Amino acid sequence: MKMAQLSSASGVPVATIKYYLREGLLQPGQRSGPNQSLYGPEHLRRLRVIRGLLDVGGLSVAAAHQVIDAIDSDLGLAHTFDIAQRTVSPQLERTALAPDALAQVDDVLDGWLVSPDNPGRLAAARVLQTFRELGQPDLSGWVPAYAAAALAVADADLDEIDARADRESKTEMVVIGTVLGDALFAALRRAAQEHVTAERYAAPPAP
Amino acid sequence: MKMAQLSSASGVPVATIKYYLREGLLQPGQRSGPNQSLYGPEHLRRLRVIRGLLDVGGLSVAAAHQVIDAIDSDLGLAHTFDIAQRTVSPQLERTALAPDALAQVDDVLDGWLVSPDNPGRLAAARVLQTFRELGQPDLSGWVPAYAAAALAVADADLDEIDARADRESKTEMVVIGTVLGDALFAALRRAAQEHVTAERYAAPPAP
Repeated sequence: MKMAQLSSASGVPVATIKYYLREGLLQPGQRSGPNQSLYGPEHLRRLRVIRGLLDVGGLSVAAAHQVIDAIDSDLGLAHTFDIAQRTVSPQLERTALAPDALAQVDDVLDGWLVSPDNPGRLAAARVLQTFRELGQPDLSGWVPAYAAAALAVADADLDEIDARADRESKTEMVVIGTVLGDALFAALRRAAQEHVTAERYAAPPAP
Repeated sequence: MKMAQLSSASGVPVATIKYYLREGLLQPGQRSGPNQSLYGPEHLRRLRVIRGLLDVGGLSVAAAHQVIDAIDSDLGLAHTFDIAQRTVSPQLERTALAPDALAQVDDVLDGWLVSPDNPGRLAAARVLQTFRELGQPDLSGWVPAYAAAALAVADADLDEIDARADRESKTEMVVIGTVLGDALFAALRRAAQEHVTAERYAAPPAP
């Protein structure tokens, strides 16, 4: 299909498609004339991945570029995971974090096989450091509940990746699942908060 | 204390403190001279809340303003929750979402007390709509695992809020917990993914 058709099929304006092509986010079409290229279903699919990462996942164009390169590469699953995780995590130096906040995370992650520089370990320590600075060092009910929930979700993530047939759809799920999984969980947490609040505090229905 | 002292106590540069004052994020100090004000521990605490929301929670200044106004107001807990949730959620119109994606969310939330315009319900539908556009309508193992984990986390959120003594610390926890809880969960999910991957695929240790 021509670019105008790719635009109407995807709902992405032509100028935006051209921008993605220039930025290397979208692979070039097949040249069919001096000023024309043809695009196939793989371009439509890639456009949907890009919009998902940018609009729903909230990634920057640079970050989307990194994770799309990982999908296109022939890197192994663990390596792709690492790239996806680092792209969506804050860049933190272990030495810049308060040792007591790191120790608090490690207490919660006791028994987990996690490397010292795992971006999640460092990001969790920064959150706990913020609570400590706000005079709330004791979150001994709250944080372990989060860790248990995160473990259940990670298990579901790996199940979903395992269920994919080939390498490409597995790595696509690693990337999309890492980015959109955050958005999905945050969304369901808001719905759950309304539900739990209503259950706990709502007036009982009239008899 | 003077502004220079507030700066060194908080680690926030003077120019940034002045910016927060101009923007109304930080409450004014007590005027002690024509060009001087004095600040107390409440200013130091507020600065830490602001930095947590901006740096760790990733909020914009405008969004931080909205939720800080909610802390300072005398709104009830449910109303504060609503403001915090809407501030950190994408602005979505129910009518712009695919009905089948909304139905898929409602299936998962079956039995939950959630209003049709709950920002989490709509944001979850948008995530599922993205997966549907990518040819992945069936996530029947994945999404319910997320919903169960979100319910456990929301329960822990409400426990933590209930444990606070007074209205101000309760609403502060609503706001901080809503924003930083997302960051904490995403962080722990990354650590859990490394752990589960290692458990499932790592070579067994040599005997």
